[in-house]
Amino acid sequence: MIHGGLVRWLHLDPKEVLDFSSNVNPFGPPKGAVKAAREALSYTHIYPDREQARLRRAFARWLGIDESAVCFGNGASDVMGAAIMAFRPGRIVTFSPTFGEYRQWGERLRVPTREIPLVAPNFAPSLGDLESTLSHGDLLVICQPNNPTGRVWTQEEMEQVLELCSRQGAILMVDECFVNLTWPPAPSAIEHLPRGNLLILRAFTKDFSAPGLRIGAALGHPDAVARIRHCLQPWPINCAGEAFATWCCENPEPFISDSRHRLAKERKYMMRNLRRLGFQPVEGDSNFILTRCPVPAWALAKELLKRRILIRTCRSFGLGDDHARLAVKDRRSNRALFNALEDALRALMDKDLEYGI
Amino acid sequence: MIHGGLVRWLHLDPKEVLDFSSNVNPFGPPKGAVKAAREALSYTHIYPDREQARLRRAFARWLGIDESAVCFGNGASDVMGAAIMAFRPGRIVTFSPTFGEYRQWGERLRVPTREIPLVAPNFAPSLGDLESTLSHGDLLVICQPNNPTGRVWTQEEMEQVLELCSRQGAILMVDECFVNLTWPPAPSAIEHLPRGNLLILRAFTKDFSAPGLRIGAALGHPDAVARIRHCLQPWPINCAGEAFATWCCENPEPFISDSRHRLAKERKYMMRNLRRLGFQPVEGDSNFILTRCPVPAWALAKELLKRRILIRTCRSFGLGDDHARLAVKDRRSNRALFNALEDALRALMDKDLEYGI
Repeated sequence: MIHGGLVRWLHLDPKEVLDFSSNVNPFGPPKGAVKAAREALSYTHIYPDREQARLRRAFARWLGIDESAVCFGNGASDVMGAAIMAFRPGRIVTFSPTFGEYRQWGERLRVPTREIPLVAPNFAPSLGDLESTLSHGDLLVICQPNNPTGRVWTQEEMEQVLELCSRQGAILMVDECFVNLTWPPAPSAIEHLPRGNLLILRAFTKDFSAPGLRIGAALGHPDAVARIRHCLQPWPINCAGEAFATWCCENPEPFISDSRHRLAKERKYMMRNLRRLGFQPVEGDSNFILTRCPVPAWALAKELLKRRILIRTCRSFGLGDDHARLAVKDRRSNRALFNALEDALRALMDKDLEYGI
Repeated sequence: MIHGGLVRWLHLDPKEVLDFSSNVNPFGPPKGAVKAAREALSYTHIYPDREQARLRRAFARWLGIDESAVCFGNGASDVMGAAIMAFRPGRIVTFSPTFGEYRQWGERLRVPTREIPLVAPNFAPSLGDLESTLSHGDLLVICQPNNPTGRVWTQEEMEQVLELCSRQGAILMVDECFVNLTWPPAPSAIEHLPRGNLLILRAFTKDFSAPGLRIGAALGHPDAVARIRHCLQPWPINCAGEAFATWCCENPEPFISDSRHRLAKERKYMMRNLRRLGFQPVEGDSNFILTRCPVPAWALAKELLKRRILIRTCRSFGLGDDHARLAVKDRRSNRALFNALEDALRALMDKDLEYGI
């Protein structure tokens, strides 16, 4: 299990499983956005707008930024790769565990990656470690909130990190793909734009439940955005995704606010129940929960799969077999998860010798 | 005018212009494929299959290749970039004029490009020039048929090129994005698979009129394909494009055969009429025509735009202002083109002093 979003990979019928490995907004996608995507398929035979004018305008209005401060690609991963091509950093510096694509892009583009460890149980970053690690020409990537730990960078930490990057001559890339689903709201780096050494990644994947449509955004100084755009192919976005994302930018509310409030409530429900069952979840404000498990995560995942529930083990994040990541979903799904968890734990306790618990 | 597919860029209503700058199949997209794409949007919230299993199976069956010999990305450009990342050639060698993305990827990935000139009027490649240029570690990219010249590589030339690449230790990448629209059929390099130093690009963009959906394929030896897949992001294709492409692979006929026959007929009609109006079109078997114009191409393009018709000037291909590229379309559109061309030429002759003709 390398990534979340396992339904198709395991050849399961999406209607017959509850996928807690995929941490997209469980309350989407917005019907109007899907309708807009369907209508856009009448223009399958037309090349999408290379200038991405309509989507840039809608996105800029939504976030109160300049239209020249954003460009779009085939998901956040696409624009991330283009940004690394554009700026050719000497190294990619990340905190670990974090989203694996940062390191993957380093491998693809032959840029070495340096990982600063985050330590259990709370996975708080050490800015001292960062200061002694960061050098001129580095690209520091931080994830707000961090995936898979769910920990949020505070306003103060963000400012310290930015300041440190400026002092050391490094570029800061803040991956904000989950930021709209946090409650209380995690601070966004957008207020620090435009700034020559700051890039921000956004996507529609998580906020609007659209991993099938692949629209991601790079935000930054207009000069930086122009360089990134040049490193993307002429038509990186598809017509359905473009229409979907435009609709979402034009109608973000009340969908986003409702979602984050409901997610916060469900998160509390899940935290309480996880603790009751002997899990040790990490505190956070995100739509996913990293937790220590009372049994090996792979064994738990296997038992849950029998009950048509998927969770995310965390070895590919560099964590041990004691951790799992769970998406926060709607109450009905969460109830089903806890029923299955109780069952699964009982089943595992019964064969504790086999699993060596 | 850097690329074809100008409708959106110029903020024109696609229903009100005839776009001869976009050389996609004018007889598509197949209705069933669009329907499949629309239905797939019900699964916007699910991550696409990372293994691309269903599409790989359908594509492999259609072309009679092994499932492990192909992977898919966000259009041919995406897999092209991934292939260059995977193999890190010392240089990219192309014949020029040709499709600009080969050179663009070289710039993005900092791989130098070496262009071997093709010379007017017939733009035939010189294999002697190729032999004296190609060195160990190069990636030679040829386009079958070549865009924008429309010239087809013969079976014999293809074999000579492959042989030369093997002898010099170079990799050959054959871009076959237009091959299914040629008549008589241009030879495909597929019959030479699997071969360690041969890669083939295909796309659904041109064959099935789907520039809005972005699905391209890389074909090669299974080891090479695995390396390319690793250089693509985990989910490079969108659910609508995946469903569209799968439908096309399962139902390619009679759509493709009908299209290529009709295109061949329309091509003849256009060649005859172009000559009648004083153009000097290049001979070829493709769904687009490169032609010398009796007036400067930019002036002609400007006059035609007034008449709601777009054509492709060729300066970005490194050609002079005397050349233009025209897509081959259906008879009704082609008739409209020639009516407008006659008008436009008359208008230009009237102001010949202004244009210095």
